[in-house]
Amino acid sequence: MNIIGKQFINGQRVAQSKVAFSSSDASTGAALPYTFFEATGEEVQQAVAAATVAFMQFRQTGIEERAVFLETIAGELDELDNDFIGVVMQESGLPEARIRGERQRTSNQLRLFAQVLRRGDFLGVRIDTALPERQPLSRPDIRQYRIALGPVAVFGASNFPLAFSVAGGDTASALAAGCPVVVKAHPGHPATSELVAGALVRALRRCNLPAGVFGMLFGNMIGADLVKASGIKAVAFTGSLRAGQALCELAAQRPEPIPVFAEMSGINPVILLPKALEQRGELIAAGLAASATLGSGQFCTKPGLVIGFKGEYFDRFRDHLAAAIGEKEPAVMLNRGILNNYDDGMDRLYRLPGIKCLSGGTHNENRALPTVFLADSSLLHHRDHPLENEVFGPVTVLVAVSDQQELIELLPELHGHLTSSLFAEQCELSDCLPLIEALETRVGRIIFNDYPTGVEVCDAMVHGGPYPATSDNRTTSVGSLAMDRFLRPVCYQGYPDSLLPAPLKNANPHGILRLVNGKWTDKAI
Amino acid sequence: MNIIGKQFINGQRVAQSKVAFSSSDASTGAALPYTFFEATGEEVQQAVAAATVAFMQFRQTGIEERAVFLETIAGELDELDNDFIGVVMQESGLPEARIRGERQRTSNQLRLFAQVLRRGDFLGVRIDTALPERQPLSRPDIRQYRIALGPVAVFGASNFPLAFSVAGGDTASALAAGCPVVVKAHPGHPATSELVAGALVRALRRCNLPAGVFGMLFGNMIGADLVKASGIKAVAFTGSLRAGQALCELAAQRPEPIPVFAEMSGINPVILLPKALEQRGELIAAGLAASATLGSGQFCTKPGLVIGFKGEYFDRFRDHLAAAIGEKEPAVMLNRGILNNYDDGMDRLYRLPGIKCLSGGTHNENRALPTVFLADSSLLHHRDHPLENEVFGPVTVLVAVSDQQELIELLPELHGHLTSSLFAEQCELSDCLPLIEALETRVGRIIFNDYPTGVEVCDAMVHGGPYPATSDNRTTSVGSLAMDRFLRPVCYQGYPDSLLPAPLKNANPHGILRLVNGKWTDKAI
Repeated sequence: MNIIGKQFINGQRVAQSKVAFSSSDASTGAALPYTFFEATGEEVQQAVAAATVAFMQFRQTGIEERAVFLETIAGELDELDNDFIGVVMQESGLPEARIRGERQRTSNQLRLFAQVLRRGDFLGVRIDTALPERQPLSRPDIRQYRIALGPVAVFGASNFPLAFSVAGGDTASALAAGCPVVVKAHPGHPATSELVAGALVRALRRCNLPAGVFGMLFGNMIGADLVKASGIKAVAFTGSLRAGQALCELAAQRPEPIPVFAEMSGINPVILLPKALEQRGELIAAGLAASATLGSGQFCTKPGLVIGFKGEYFDRFRDHLAAAIGEKEPAVMLNRGILNNYDDGMDRLYRLPGIKCLSGGTHNENRALPTVFLADSSLLHHRDHPLENEVFGPVTVLVAVSDQQELIELLPELHGHLTSSLFAEQCELSDCLPLIEALETRVGRIIFNDYPTGVEVCDAMVHGGPYPATSDNRTTSVGSLAMDRFLRPVCYQGYPDSLLPAPLKNANPHGILRLVNGKWTDKAI
Repeated sequence: MNIIGKQFINGQRVAQSKVAFSSSDASTGAALPYTFFEATGEEVQQAVAAATVAFMQFRQTGIEERAVFLETIAGELDELDNDFIGVVMQESGLPEARIRGERQRTSNQLRLFAQVLRRGDFLGVRIDTALPERQPLSRPDIRQYRIALGPVAVFGASNFPLAFSVAGGDTASALAAGCPVVVKAHPGHPATSELVAGALVRALRRCNLPAGVFGMLFGNMIGADLVKASGIKAVAFTGSLRAGQALCELAAQRPEPIPVFAEMSGINPVILLPKALEQRGELIAAGLAASATLGSGQFCTKPGLVIGFKGEYFDRFRDHLAAAIGEKEPAVMLNRGILNNYDDGMDRLYRLPGIKCLSGGTHNENRALPTVFLADSSLLHHRDHPLENEVFGPVTVLVAVSDQQELIELLPELHGHLTSSLFAEQCELSDCLPLIEALETRVGRIIFNDYPTGVEVCDAMVHGGPYPATSDNRTTSVGSLAMDRFLRPVCYQGYPDSLLPAPLKNANPHGILRLVNGKWTDKAI
């Protein structure tokens, strides 16, 4: 395992500073035998400068060339060996099957963007041809498509060391759009990051693309410098609300403000209609317990709030859920900081008036204990939204409301979240409609009779939602629409065909679907 | 002319405050005989509350219902009588033909959005059907479309009292998206605003839509309250850089930050290649003089910087341009404030070292004198970008660079602008390619052999550009793509067909183009 802990800048491995840190074995807390050097402010500037130079060539690469590049990265990831899997397991505390599955998800994600590139619709081509005879004024020929925004700063997440990190969805979608990427490696899994970055660099070389297309920096203190670097044109972040807000503020204060796409928090309310609890309460309890504790509850889509209707079936469900959560093993967390935050969050919940612990509790040595609370519905109506502060880890809160009316009044007041699930029987479908109408204004994904964990990477996925779930609810960070974050429209007026970029030429050489004079067509003009 | 100067709130005309103001006759400065009441903070809250209530119904209106509403507004605008035209002329100082043309542009803009609604592609429907047999995990059915963001605050612009004001592009695109609108009437044309708002309210009533879908407030002090109102979910603004920046800061500081789409400034660089000047320098000079002084130079697309190559043909062009600008009449400005700002901007230019006035000068009584300056190219390289500060009015600056190399080094350093024009002959096309590559990263619209004024309202238009041209270069404020600003994606996972919104149902009842399992089709599933 050749891990040297230096920055990745313009194809070189460099380290100006001697300040170093290590990562830890998540399950024991022991330091791992790898050393990483804190990037300096000057190194941040160098990585961004290399990305800025590389941008002028990279943004002009053809669709096929970029698609092959993404597939080459995917191939390099797939070829990482068992030692790699071992390192990821050590740094994250996640089991082997999960890591292997996440690696496949990550490489397939890159392959999905390759498909999207070849489909060409991400270019958003719109053509209005000239109307020289129009009265009172002629219309010039105008042709629009979308181009890359510029170098993107990517902040990897701790909880998906592969799928939301160095070569994860943010990087994949930025590269697909034609934007170079400078990654701030997550300090929780720097060795994992180095090995993935190596795969990315090999793919760049195999594709003869400029080295500045990908850079990566280690360190805990460099985030602000990276966001403030003038060459950076957008920021993608997955992490805590506080860190996301700080990045948004920094980006807004730049001489040239830039967009920050931060996926920050959420508790993913689950709503259980009475007949569903009556018919299959025990099954739902088992499913929810599994979903709330999956990956030690360290998913942004963890169901952290479960709302049912008071009554006999709710009480039975409550007991089933308490039992099911009580049977879960104490959970290894990604790192000590996250375990400490979990304890703090549990303390906050314990201190709320009108809440009681049904099973679980605080942590057990260096593990988190899966826990379920029962809260009074008054806490849902409280203007401080105490039940909507995410507690990252294997805990969920159960609440009973009196009736549908109480629920319908409540839903529009919820904070923004990533998802909401609705469990209902066939005979309750008509009751669902007003709930759906309210829920879709508060979340990005609404789910029927299923659990929120498991985020499919596909064209239709929305992994986003109103603030504070994300900083920009007009976007998604998972699925092919994620590319849109890094593209901007530009139009050409009156240009001769020979000067137009290929996707806008009369002949439509890529055969893509284009909006021509108000009609969609893949024909030539 | 029944102008009462009260706020438009939830279908009522109200005024809490007695603080009042008048607008002025732009050409004489005399007060007009209409009184407008400053909206209070409470009235801002009331208008936003009405919009918030109306949103729940309005966002669920069908495509056809919203299209008819937009067409009804267009019809009401077209029916406004000659007295209306007279009021707009008085308040703006703009000539009758311009006002009539702008009215038609405004109503046709509404009709374009009606067409876009019926086309249905704005919904961005993406469907991935279930793959129950997939290994290792089944795929659920996931369906995405875009829904309205919520109530939008619209700040009208002074320079287009119809097309970028009460019922202008921002309002039209927000209403098309299903978002209620609360307009801050521009204090430069409040009587115009009241008459247009009346047309909008009549259209709402004829279509039996909730009164809260449209509100309008008069006053100079209410902008901050409007942006800070929690019910507002996006802001659209056209105006100065300083005001736009202030709104962005306010929006970012809200407990729930919201997007601000501000179109703020630009000087629209025009680049003249040598053969074009040789072949048709006099013609281009005449065209540029007309474009720079059109509407008294009060267009965001005014060509404010003209760059040629040193030499004999440039010198001749310089003299033609000076003569053509010198022949233009002193110009009535929209209001005294704008005339004063023009004088200040002219002073700034005069004081630059290496600049000289070729024709025109400071203002003549209460008119602005069309003016052209010649500046040394060192000013283009200056790190303060002194030639890129917009001076709103009939002035442009001419600069000669030494050669193509100097230009190519210069272009990537330009600030963001809305447009850039390139004039070239057939034999110079190959010289254009590197210029285009550089320009498209700095502007939203690049124009070949034509002037930047005249912004076609169509599908392909981009009226946007990198900061400080706009606050968000991923959007446009003119053309059908402007709707995208007010939409966000949401997806439904595992929903029965009966609970899905119409555009996502298997039958595809609207017959719209949808991305189904990676292929575009208008067929049912």
